[in-house]
Amino acid sequence: MRGYPIVISSPSGGGKTTLVHRILADMPKAAYSVSVTTRPPRSGERNGRDYYFVSKAAFERMVRKRELAEWAGVHGHCYGTPRKFLDAKISLGYFPLLDIDVQGALQLKKKYPDGVYIFLIPPTLRELSRRLRERHTDSPEDIKRRLAAAKRELAVAQNYDYVVLNDDLDAAVERVKTILEAERWRAHRAESRLKALR
Amino acid sequence: MRGYPIVISSPSGGGKTTLVHRILADMPKAAYSVSVTTRPPRSGERNGRDYYFVSKAAFERMVRKRELAEWAGVHGHCYGTPRKFLDAKISLGYFPLLDIDVQGALQLKKKYPDGVYIFLIPPTLRELSRRLRERHTDSPEDIKRRLAAAKRELAVAQNYDYVVLNDDLDAAVERVKTILEAERWRAHRAESRLKALR
Repeated sequence: MRGYPIVISSPSGGGKTTLVHRILADMPKAAYSVSVTTRPPRSGERNGRDYYFVSKAAFERMVRKRELAEWAGVHGHCYGTPRKFLDAKISLGYFPLLDIDVQGALQLKKKYPDGVYIFLIPPTLRELSRRLRERHTDSPEDIKRRLAAAKRELAVAQNYDYVVLNDDLDAAVERVKTILEAERWRAHRAESRLKALR
Repeated sequence: MRGYPIVISSPSGGGKTTLVHRILADMPKAAYSVSVTTRPPRSGERNGRDYYFVSKAAFERMVRKRELAEWAGVHGHCYGTPRKFLDAKISLGYFPLLDIDVQGALQLKKKYPDGVYIFLIPPTLRELSRRLRERHTDSPEDIKRRLAAAKRELAVAQNYDYVVLNDDLDAAVERVKTILEAERWRAHRAESRLKALR
């Protein structure tokens, strides 16, 4: 049985990273897809665990050699997903878990239409703004820019398969786990089971 | 918030009826949609609870007056779903639960595309045949005919949204409940939530 990608997006401050770690801890067959980026590491981030940090030239080479399943520019930096990891995991029956932005996710959906695409939304924009301020990692201008980006992202959220409310982390984790359980029974995944019955 | 139809189909002997009762007991907003039929009542069946038993002429009149949301002929009898009940429940935020055959379900899917369409499958055809024999309600010819119908039905099961294995009743009930939970978060149901955020 082949796996399929599980994609989680949300506006910055949407609570994506914590949720992704919780899903990984509970789902033995999920495998975190580490993105490549040209942005410099933040304090505490480790190369190969949080991101692969590469030069602009190295990133462009990966794009040219078609080594990225999707890539996008976000807030002046480039981010991409190595295709090799994705395809290897899928063919071995694992579920690559991707924490990527909307541009990348919608590119990936065209190439991997059998994946599960989930967009996490905050209860209100005010709450999103509060969470961004509480992180203490962004300047007021950064926060303003992230909120403007959030509004643009929300406008395309309906192109995902699911839009999940993240009003409470535990509840949101349960919602995503329920979705992933239910997805196992989607009709388009039943082909081999139905063939065996005939 | 409007509801939407939840449709459960399976070959005869697929365990649909018991499962439907379990879902109804656990889901306060689900409302069983009683079908209209021209077939005579079996022992223990009650008019208005299990079916509305009507004459062929009365059934034809309902078809002509477009009172049925779907209807189909199965094993020489006609079955249909009153549109009025369906639409009233949906507009009140309830979830009509329909236990109907594949022809009717696929008709309904065109008219109510936002519904949830679930097809239950037995683990094997041998198991299906065993369940039919154990009911002691069908003659050997009936069983043969039902098995042939089951094969035709399995061939279109992929047109449903979900194909759920019913190898164990409790497990199948949990699978359906998980699916219905997950469906609340489908992107196409998030419109008003997303609008409120912008």
